[in-house]
Amino acid sequence: MPSTARDCSIAAALGVVGEKYSLLVLREVFFGVHRFDAIARNTGAPRDVLAARLRKLVEARVLEARPYSLHPPRQEYHATAAGEELRPVLLLLMKWGDRHVADVPPVVFSHDCGADLDPVLACRACGEPVRPEGLRGRTAF
Amino acid sequence: MPSTARDCSIAAALGVVGEKYSLLVLREVFFGVHRFDAIARNTGAPRDVLAARLRKLVEARVLEARPYSLHPPRQEYHATAAGEELRPVLLLLMKWGDRHVADVPPVVFSHDCGADLDPVLACRACGEPVRPEGLRGRTAF
Repeated sequence: MPSTARDCSIAAALGVVGEKYSLLVLREVFFGVHRFDAIARNTGAPRDVLAARLRKLVEARVLEARPYSLHPPRQEYHATAAGEELRPVLLLLMKWGDRHVADVPPVVFSHDCGADLDPVLACRACGEPVRPEGLRGRTAF
Repeated sequence: MPSTARDCSIAAALGVVGEKYSLLVLREVFFGVHRFDAIARNTGAPRDVLAARLRKLVEARVLEARPYSLHPPRQEYHATAAGEELRPVLLLLMKWGDRHVADVPPVVFSHDCGADLDPVLACRACGEPVRPEGLRGRTAF
């Protein structure tokens, strides 16, 4: 990337999880799928690509590898606390895909308040939904 | 992708905005940068790649192209309502990058409640933050 490109936290985040299959791997882990063969099947990732993605996600401490067999050596992949913090990104992408792209039936989650989950970004301090016009920054994001 | 891969709204969303540079293009549009040359400079995307990404995002109705010059023909790119709904995804990725990756100073937004924005995913119905253990679905997402 040329040095004139904007150096930002979004690009940094995408440098870790922005490659093809990385977020789908995380989806599987959040769905409770932790083993290589099942992740490969459910994401459709070629095995060599998947191995590279898992290695990178472990190095970046988004996933951790836990041995479940010594002979032969086998590992399961679990989300770290940092990885867990990406779950809201996937929930938003899922909702967006449901609304604007997918021709598959939407996955519906019930929130423990009883409602079907409609996720919205809120301000942690005041609890109100975040609207673009409610933000002031150094830049007009 | 083999037909055994999980057919889901996250994969569908990533099929639209999951390619390299797509979300960085949206970042620029949200930052108020709408013209090809400036988007190319700020994202670092090669011009042919950027042209392809913009075309795809317009076809998917995430961006709309608005002419600003007829001789020569030139267009600006603006977010549609569907594109605008991806802003929270970028805000979450920005926060995640700040916390876990970036070595650049974080971009701070003030929310109109007066607090620095710490974005959190909430349930639109009850307003409470969404915790994984508060969700019940057809699957253990």
